[in-house]
Amino acid sequence: MAADGVTTSAAFPVPDTMMAWVLDGPGEVRRVDKPVPVPGRAEVLLRIDAIAICPSDIDNIWYGWPAIVDGGPPFHKNWTPGHEYMGTVVALGPHVDEFAIGDRVAVEIHAGCGQCRRCRAGLYTACLNYGDRAKGHRANGFTTDGGFCGYQVNHVNTMAKLSDAIPDALGTLVVTAGTAMYALTELGGLVAGESLVVIGEGPIGLFVAAVGKTLGASPVVVTGLSPQRLAIAKGLGADHVVDVRDRDAVAAVQAIVGRHGADYVVECSGAPVAVGQAIAMASRGGRVCLAAFPAESTQVDVGRLVRDNIALFGIRGEGKRAVHRACALIRDGKFDPTPLITHTFPLDDLPTALATAKEKRDGAIKVVVTPHGGVAGRVGRG
Amino acid sequence: MAADGVTTSAAFPVPDTMMAWVLDGPGEVRRVDKPVPVPGRAEVLLRIDAIAICPSDIDNIWYGWPAIVDGGPPFHKNWTPGHEYMGTVVALGPHVDEFAIGDRVAVEIHAGCGQCRRCRAGLYTACLNYGDRAKGHRANGFTTDGGFCGYQVNHVNTMAKLSDAIPDALGTLVVTAGTAMYALTELGGLVAGESLVVIGEGPIGLFVAAVGKTLGASPVVVTGLSPQRLAIAKGLGADHVVDVRDRDAVAAVQAIVGRHGADYVVECSGAPVAVGQAIAMASRGGRVCLAAFPAESTQVDVGRLVRDNIALFGIRGEGKRAVHRACALIRDGKFDPTPLITHTFPLDDLPTALATAKEKRDGAIKVVVTPHGGVAGRVGRG
Amino acid sequence: MAADGVTTSAAFPVPDTMMAWVLDGPGEVRRVDKPVPVPGRAEVLLRIDAIAICPSDIDNIWYGWPAIVDGGPPFHKNWTPGHEYMGTVVALGPHVDEFAIGDRVAVEIHAGCGQCRRCRAGLYTACLNYGDRAKGHRANGFTTDGGFCGYQVNHVNTMAKLSDAIPDALGTLVVTAGTAMYALTELGGLVAGESLVVIGEGPIGLFVAAVGKTLGASPVVVTGLSPQRLAIAKGLGADHVVDVRDRDAVAAVQAIVGRHGADYVVECSGAPVAVGQAIAMASRGGRVCLAAFPAESTQVDVGRLVRDNIALFGIRGEGKRAVHRACALIRDGKFDPTPLITHTFPLDDLPTALATAKEKRDGAIKVVVTPHGGVAGRVGRG
Amino acid sequence: MAADGVTTSAAFPVPDTMMAWVLDGPGEVRRVDKPVPVPGRAEVLLRIDAIAICPSDIDNIWYGWPAIVDGGPPFHKNWTPGHEYMGTVVALGPHVDEFAIGDRVAVEIHAGCGQCRRCRAGLYTACLNYGDRAKGHRANGFTTDGGFCGYQVNHVNTMAKLSDAIPDALGTLVVTAGTAMYALTELGGLVAGESLVVIGEGPIGLFVAAVGKTLGASPVVVTGLSPQRLAIAKGLGADHVVDVRDRDAVAAVQAIVGRHGADYVVECSGAPVAVGQAIAMASRGGRVCLAAFPAESTQVDVGRLVRDNIALFGIRGEGKRAVHRACALIRDGKFDPTPLITHTFPLDDLPTALATAKEKRDGAIKVVVTPHGGVAGRVGRG
Repeated sequence: MAADGVTTSAAFPVPDTMMAWVLDGPGEVRRVDKPVPVPGRAEVLLRIDAIAICPSDIDNIWYGWPAIVDGGPPFHKNWTPGHEYMGTVVALGPHVDEFAIGDRVAVEIHAGCGQCRRCRAGLYTACLNYGDRAKGHRANGFTTDGGFCGYQVNHVNTMAKLSDAIPDALGTLVVTAGTAMYALTELGGLVAGESLVVIGEGPIGLFVAAVGKTLGASPVVVTGLSPQRLAIAKGLGADHVVDVRDRDAVAAVQAIVGRHGADYVVECSGAPVAVGQAIAMASRGGRVCLAAFPAESTQVDVGRLVRDNIALFGIRGEGKRAVHRACALIRDGKFDPTPLITHTFPLDDLPTALATAKEKRDGAIKVVVTPHGGVAGRVGRG
Repeated sequence: MAADGVTTSAAFPVPDTMMAWVLDGPGEVRRVDKPVPVPGRAEVLLRIDAIAICPSDIDNIWYGWPAIVDGGPPFHKNWTPGHEYMGTVVALGPHVDEFAIGDRVAVEIHAGCGQCRRCRAGLYTACLNYGDRAKGHRANGFTTDGGFCGYQVNHVNTMAKLSDAIPDALGTLVVTAGTAMYALTELGGLVAGESLVVIGEGPIGLFVAAVGKTLGASPVVVTGLSPQRLAIAKGLGADHVVDVRDRDAVAAVQAIVGRHGADYVVECSGAPVAVGQAIAMASRGGRVCLAAFPAESTQVDVGRLVRDNIALFGIRGEGKRAVHRACALIRDGKFDPTPLITHTFPLDDLPTALATAKEKRDGAIKVVVTPHGGVAGRVGRG
Repeated sequence: MAADGVTTSAAFPVPDTMMAWVLDGPGEVRRVDKPVPVPGRAEVLLRIDAIAICPSDIDNIWYGWPAIVDGGPPFHKNWTPGHEYMGTVVALGPHVDEFAIGDRVAVEIHAGCGQCRRCRAGLYTACLNYGDRAKGHRANGFTTDGGFCGYQVNHVNTMAKLSDAIPDALGTLVVTAGTAMYALTELGGLVAGESLVVIGEGPIGLFVAAVGKTLGASPVVVTGLSPQRLAIAKGLGADHVVDVRDRDAVAAVQAIVGRHGADYVVECSGAPVAVGQAIAMASRGGRVCLAAFPAESTQVDVGRLVRDNIALFGIRGEGKRAVHRACALIRDGKFDPTPLITHTFPLDDLPTALATAKEKRDGAIKVVVTPHGGVAGRVGRG
Repeated sequence: MAADGVTTSAAFPVPDTMMAWVLDGPGEVRRVDKPVPVPGRAEVLLRIDAIAICPSDIDNIWYGWPAIVDGGPPFHKNWTPGHEYMGTVVALGPHVDEFAIGDRVAVEIHAGCGQCRRCRAGLYTACLNYGDRAKGHRANGFTTDGGFCGYQVNHVNTMAKLSDAIPDALGTLVVTAGTAMYALTELGGLVAGESLVVIGEGPIGLFVAAVGKTLGASPVVVTGLSPQRLAIAKGLGADHVVDVRDRDAVAAVQAIVGRHGADYVVECSGAPVAVGQAIAMASRGGRVCLAAFPAESTQVDVGRLVRDNIALFGIRGEGKRAVHRACALIRDGKFDPTPLITHTFPLDDLPTALATAKEKRDGAIKVVVTPHGGVAGRVGRG
């Protein structure tokens, strides 16, 4: 890589081309060779050491991602999906001194344009130029090439340093922890001593429970359908879990948090009934964060919101440097998300990895792919 | 009034009993005599000089108000409705020196219990002891006796001083202006230079437009159905009004505020379609306040909230001292809400006043009732 | 105790009188008998099981506390000092159901009047009626009788439930942890991943380090003069400690946090040079909290504050329910403040206990007094 | 101007070179020819139509500006001072569509780097890469070339559209209004109905009074030394002015706002005694903003800050889009700052203009310079 102002190191040689998966048609990924991208101003090149599969990757690959920018789903566009990765800095763009070659980093997804009124106010995940690469916006794995390949370019704003004690696979989960931190941030951030209900025991829900407990929320209640995952929720710090297959979720939560309801509710399931449940569970003056959503519009008891002074926060991604902040918690070992990682595959086996995640084969929660080697198979946990 | 620690003045004699209207059955009010209430600690007695009729009074009287406290609607309970009043301080409870006898004041509705975690955080309109008089909560005209009578007790926290330049009738509107101010406060308060859309041209909507424009929102757009009221909106500072009887509200608003959508939207209509419109009108990262609500649950595009990082704030009443703050704007003559006052009646004619407001007879917007005299009939406006 | 509306239980009998220490002249406390106080509306009676000595108690007793209310220092006024206590609920005032007889609780100091504009906004430690008992203000151990006695009345707002796992002595430290939590709250509360410098290794400084680390601050640096206490700081989570007896504090901190300076600085020493150091250590856009202060005015580089957009927050006490929130961290065992407790004495020996604390005899940090029995002597820690 | 991706228009021809003043030695400016700068990504080229002289220009030119970046004062560096300008867009950098050629705009000073943690949080005036042009930082007239010349490049983030109704000279004051708006923003922004004291009747102080009154602060009190300027303060909305030449400022303010003191105080004088006065004037729980500063450290009663829960905000410049927001107030005619403009000169006469401003000749407040023509001399005001 010899480009103007770009710094490289013999210790981390960078090839000119790399293997990459691209999206062909719904559910079809294809191997191609692509040039290794070149970092520009305020950017670095990462060697992708590990990447996890997110439910939104499945959505993007099978159904096309929500068409929030003109042109709609990126099928047949030579586009590389994948966004939950970590890696090693192998080249620095011009004037970059925030990171050094060899640094191991986790990433966040959104690099705002930096020139709209939302970015200017720090709300870069709500960038008004979302998807407009010419304006400087980047959402790797959504609107720009992602991480199911060997190397990717990241803006310096979108990286958090990992300590050596954090294994690669764990590093891929930092961005999910960041979404959890962002959810709690939008709720005000001061959750210590307040009741927190998490609806949904997927990866985001589990991390909301873990981060919430770390920050002192009390009690932390997780509702869900999977005994396996609810057990993990307990291990991550949930004070109570509610299996809603055989109980009324709202009544069960009120029995735990008291008749006034919960101070904070984070909806992470995307189930059509869940928004209504979240609002019903919240106390007067309570706050609800929506981190997932159903495909269709859903019934909402707006009167409850008004009569009882309740606020509802939709969140996209992991704004307000939440990834950086969540990374600090993981570096300090405040909780251990290792049990979420159930499978790893080499990048060559991406189709199998995707199918494993999509079908939740063999109790799959987080499936990790390792582009440059790594041990495949199920991670033993007991 | 000779009670322990209560101060009175010969200049403002207080009788022992007063005429009051009470709610009998749905839509039926009845005249009774009641003892004049006695102010306790941190309370004063007000002589009610004028009281306006709010759409929520109509709801309370005809349908029973939303049953947010045990026991449900207060029909047949000797309860006096009415909450949009102003008056003159005629007696001081023990240790009160925040006000003096003779002060003219506007009121806000909610006196929180002061001892729940919401009140402790300043969120007294979301008091967890809502409706619990023994705990100190008071919402005159909702859970405690209101203002369709001669005198009422108010907590010192629920009053804002009026200047002599503000006529009695105008003073009754201060609480509505406070709701508008609270809506803008929940949206962050910093609306100058940002686009603000108001859905609904009722009294609250008109005040949101007026307060928003005073605080510098630009442009201010009001959507509604009544040409008469939309003209008043323009007079109060709206830069644009949109008659939605013959146009698509969302498209019309976007044509004005631009394709990104509005920074702030306040829904004041309670129409079932309005919440959906409000969300559709908001920009990425925008904020929506709900100050009114439909009787039934309504469809909400939750995906839009999540994908585009939008927050939704239900507000009850007029928290965070918004009445006090709005009162300052009116005292300084920042806008003139006089055109909203279309009718006045003496207290004796309350049934006619209520019917006038309920049926919007003769273009009625705000109907004012004067318990201790005042000029009846339509207020001429040229 | 037979008073109107007060509830008691045979399981927790309450005597009519109690032993209490009162302040006679500077540095002189005297034993008296006092009636056991009676809880009013929204109040409970606590049996004081343990109380710690705070440096501000020493100030109050020897020098008179800062005359922030008319009438000045409370010498010779039959006033009982002491404010860092915990106890057991033994009687409930009228309508109290927030607590039950037998509950073990920690306390916070300030019960605002609830009727000034600061209380109304949730800022009860800045109550404008500070010291005005008739208006409802209470600051036990400052403006009202405190805890160096057998029983005391507390407003329900000023208590946080302790779990059985927290020993009495530890419970006395919750209020200090609350001050630390309040400091971090005023700094914005979102300290995870941000650098935090604590100046001063007294009890408040140690708790700021512990709470800051719990919430994810990184790195946490404590500066101080005592190797013994700096070692405790490390045990409580500080990533770095700086002994400033032989080093330049500002340079040493910058060497750790980087040339831009610290995101957050909390000054807990009260040393005259410390405010200047705190400002010098802060980064551009950084925030400084002052939790202690020197007796005299001190030089401040105001230009630095302005040029570099730095904010300075003075905090009194433990507002915004910080005691409640800190208590949750201690209940969950996030950190263990036991090493701060170096001595315990029975209430009879209060003069010795005060002298031990004042003179820091035998490495004294926190000296705890037990009004109703308990083991005297040094707590072994090795 | 023919540069890659730059758009120009025949209607607004752009020369290759321009006249510019540069700083030679202390107090010495020299005319030179400079190339007209070329706008890059997210930048436009402005034709400077009018520029006002700020007291900080005088400081920069005579004493060198505060050395907050390495290398110190920019004497003898071919640097062009001046930052309070407005102009017309005459060329667009690549991909710019936020503005069109021909747009008249006011400017703000600071374009943050966009890649440090402060910029990422929206605090671009506290950019950690302040003065580092390679990282993208720009502060025209401070660290990069300013406006005492014919043309200048501005980042799209640093411009606010002017309406045709705002004359050029008035447009130069928008940035100062932005500083006032930023001061009130840092104080929380919700000033309606709260007391606001402004110390210092210079341009910033006058704008704080005007913006504060527009947003409803009540009462607004301005303290100062110049009867001429205090009269302008009254015209801009101050409810009270205090001539402090013959009175104690603190006592005089308390007599107006009441014994509890002021809710908000903004110090705009830079006088050494003023910080102490500001703190003394603030109420318990009050907030003080410092928008000016003395050259030397000054005595501060830190104990007052702590005991009474007072916060102090240093502000640099005009962050949080305050210029944009203030511009909306001026566009809507909320107040008329015309009386501040006392003199105008052509750019050729810059030395005379600077001397007039520095020596406050002939009652000079704001001296405006017009690079491309305009009427010189004193502006008559009746």
